[in-house]
Amino acid sequence: MNLDNLFNAAQEAFLFYKNVSGQEKGAFLEKLADTLESNREEIVSLAVIESNLPEGRINGELGRTVGQIRLFAKVVKEGSWIEATIDPAMPDRTPLPRADIRRMLTPLGPVVVFGASNFPLAFSTAGGDTISALAAGCPVIYKAHPAHPKTSQKVAECIHEAILKTNMPSALFTHVEGGIPEGQALVKHPLAKAVAFTGSHAGGKALFDLANQREEPIPVYAEMGSVNPIFCFSKKLQNENDVLAKAFVASLTLGVGQFCTNPGLIFVPKSQAKAFEKAIADELNDIASAPMLHPGIAEAYYNSIQYLQSREELRWVKVADAQHLINGSTALAEIKASDWLQDTVFQKEVFGAFAMMVVYENEDELIEIAKHLHGQLTVTIWAEQEELQDQLFLLNLLEEKCGRLLFKGVPTGVEVGYAMQHGGPYPSTTNARSTSVGVYAIKRFARPIAFQDMPQELLPDALKDGNPLGIWRMVDGEFEK
Amino acid sequence: MNLDNLFNAAQEAFLFYKNVSGQEKGAFLEKLADTLESNREEIVSLAVIESNLPEGRINGELGRTVGQIRLFAKVVKEGSWIEATIDPAMPDRTPLPRADIRRMLTPLGPVVVFGASNFPLAFSTAGGDTISALAAGCPVIYKAHPAHPKTSQKVAECIHEAILKTNMPSALFTHVEGGIPEGQALVKHPLAKAVAFTGSHAGGKALFDLANQREEPIPVYAEMGSVNPIFCFSKKLQNENDVLAKAFVASLTLGVGQFCTNPGLIFVPKSQAKAFEKAIADELNDIASAPMLHPGIAEAYYNSIQYLQSREELRWVKVADAQHLINGSTALAEIKASDWLQDTVFQKEVFGAFAMMVVYENEDELIEIAKHLHGQLTVTIWAEQEELQDQLFLLNLLEEKCGRLLFKGVPTGVEVGYAMQHGGPYPSTTNARSTSVGVYAIKRFARPIAFQDMPQELLPDALKDGNPLGIWRMVDGEFEK
Repeated sequence: MNLDNLFNAAQEAFLFYKNVSGQEKGAFLEKLADTLESNREEIVSLAVIESNLPEGRINGELGRTVGQIRLFAKVVKEGSWIEATIDPAMPDRTPLPRADIRRMLTPLGPVVVFGASNFPLAFSTAGGDTISALAAGCPVIYKAHPAHPKTSQKVAECIHEAILKTNMPSALFTHVEGGIPEGQALVKHPLAKAVAFTGSHAGGKALFDLANQREEPIPVYAEMGSVNPIFCFSKKLQNENDVLAKAFVASLTLGVGQFCTNPGLIFVPKSQAKAFEKAIADELNDIASAPMLHPGIAEAYYNSIQYLQSREELRWVKVADAQHLINGSTALAEIKASDWLQDTVFQKEVFGAFAMMVVYENEDELIEIAKHLHGQLTVTIWAEQEELQDQLFLLNLLEEKCGRLLFKGVPTGVEVGYAMQHGGPYPSTTNARSTSVGVYAIKRFARPIAFQDMPQELLPDALKDGNPLGIWRMVDGEFEK
Repeated sequence: MNLDNLFNAAQEAFLFYKNVSGQEKGAFLEKLADTLESNREEIVSLAVIESNLPEGRINGELGRTVGQIRLFAKVVKEGSWIEATIDPAMPDRTPLPRADIRRMLTPLGPVVVFGASNFPLAFSTAGGDTISALAAGCPVIYKAHPAHPKTSQKVAECIHEAILKTNMPSALFTHVEGGIPEGQALVKHPLAKAVAFTGSHAGGKALFDLANQREEPIPVYAEMGSVNPIFCFSKKLQNENDVLAKAFVASLTLGVGQFCTNPGLIFVPKSQAKAFEKAIADELNDIASAPMLHPGIAEAYYNSIQYLQSREELRWVKVADAQHLINGSTALAEIKASDWLQDTVFQKEVFGAFAMMVVYENEDELIEIAKHLHGQLTVTIWAEQEELQDQLFLLNLLEEKCGRLLFKGVPTGVEVGYAMQHGGPYPSTTNARSTSVGVYAIKRFARPIAFQDMPQELLPDALKDGNPLGIWRMVDGEFEK
């Protein structure tokens, strides 16, 4: 398909769709959720074949995808997300009268979305990026991930079925296949107004650079993953050694370690290191190797492991078994904090079920670690509450390094809700001021516009006197409904 | 001063200041407003000398600057701006329990602010960028504009006096002088987390590129100005020819045309062009030339005019009189819409009191113009309401091209309030999803962070059970206070 035709159609769809009410946008999204549900069997069986992920997991992922769509439908039907803000006119103000000024969010325009290999449904064709862009009012040009083309096509068909049934313009969603050059061409097109991506650092950064080099730079929301460190304190490990080892290994190895938030780095106090390491090793030995998403990912995993094996600072507790090329095998290496601090290569994500256990001597080292830590999607702290009483400085440092700070549990299992933040300081994402999961993801694809002295008849309903949509608005600085 | 020392001190100040309450941040800002007021005479006399702007204007600008500071003080004292969002735990949810997740905005860290030449107070040392960054919780490293060094130093002294009197860390604000290399070095420093700039397109774009080329890219909020077109409809001009000509010229020539939002481009229907042009020319002839901000700006103005004079598409109604090198003299040229559409150079801002009047033949041409128009801070429409009934498509196109759409009055005189949007699509700014004027400007300098299962004692007050700050929060998807 000719790219200009594709984008011109998307732009035309945009100028129609931006005026569609929140009720109608919500109905379209709900129809999409229904359509996916009624095609569950076929979608799941395709995704299982193409991703090597087990059926239970894919079924759950479809449930999550559908739930996410229904949540965004609810948000756009309710309508308050557009931040309607009204400063009424003050004709009698001195020395100068105040004009009537009304502000709201307006959608950016056509958005290019790149699918992720590790979530063939929830972060792919009808995943969070696509749905939050559609919810915001933006058409989506979707670049399918080559690892699951049939799943992607099937889901795209469901989107078009929902479009058809709710009388939306068909160019609201365009499914594009291809490799890197095709993806780059989409990002470069003048009518593209934003990019969303979930994947590797190299891929996300390349798109970010490309988008900034355009004649009109556009925002790139690239979620590039991270090592999601866990900071362990001694009393906590003393009290819950085996439970925490089990939880750690379960989170590390979930989906063969192919989660953006799986914890590839764990900081352990010297006093507890031996016992904890043994418990982890015991758990790891129970984990059978399993097929990764595709051979390229397995190859990259073993290449990273191979490089790390050449580093003498590491002591290997469990070595990955690379005999099956597609299979991911767990691995664990230990390193002293003083060595870890010397080389940032030890912070690099190894996508798969590998963890680095860093043994620290004292709290001064923890502070140094926190200062040197790269930006992360998540940081987890395992401590008894009393161990944190004097750690405000450390907590403050760690807050600077992540988008989500956990005090219990594990970082995998990203909840889709209102308060979720999935996105952290660079290099975990290219835009820490946004999230790719949860309701706030919609705001990535909108920008504010103010109308000054616009006649009531021409104002969008969201900004009209009398609040016909019944949404929350800020009027003269006060929230009201 | 050594840059590492400077930024290390700012970072240390940041880790203290981010934990300072909104009440205390507000008290600091209020003390700053008071301090500026009590130094009004000296500040105004310095700014008048250094900017060539009249005393009345500078006095007004100081009032606006102080009012802006008090507004941000109110916002941070009230506290709801941080978007506190709470999804309470659901321990009994099946199949999986939900963790307790709480989200809020957290400040980015040290911010580099560049002062503007055209607003020595309101967009400079204690101007909107500095104040919104400080309100958000970020220390500011301020690069003074070389056109008004003494004014800048004096205002910086006032900031330090307010810092001292409210026991804030002195590195909360650092005043830096220098030229382009010094400014670039600030943007490149690893501890800088954001940049704010008001000025030329070349300057803003260079900083944007520099910030994106860092090892850790950081956001650049560059407000680079625009030509702020006015679209005139025939009945409106018929009815108010002279009044509108007067309003147009007043806005065009305000401050010798040195406003980001002055209207340098006006689209006029052929039927009214002669009468309107004559009325404008009459008004322009009454405007005496006046000194511009500095000789460099005057030189750039006359160079632009000189280039345009070489273009045969333009017919000159009033030629600028360049005999006084520092003085800005008004100028007006007319061009056919069909010619204007052929070359984007006719969209380039000429910083000063020059306007291009574009004469259009029909509504099809208006649609073409709207499609070709570059991103603008503002677009103004002068039409009788009935003339817009069938213009929804045009209005939609124009919305895509601006941050503020006016239906009465003139684009200069940017109100500082809740609903103001000062920022539009590229090239008018580098980030159309933000504003540099008004309350929402604070959000540029913060990012979301989520706390998962954090003990009450360690949570920020904004997210504690019982809402001790009494702010608006979203709990389980519903706003409450």
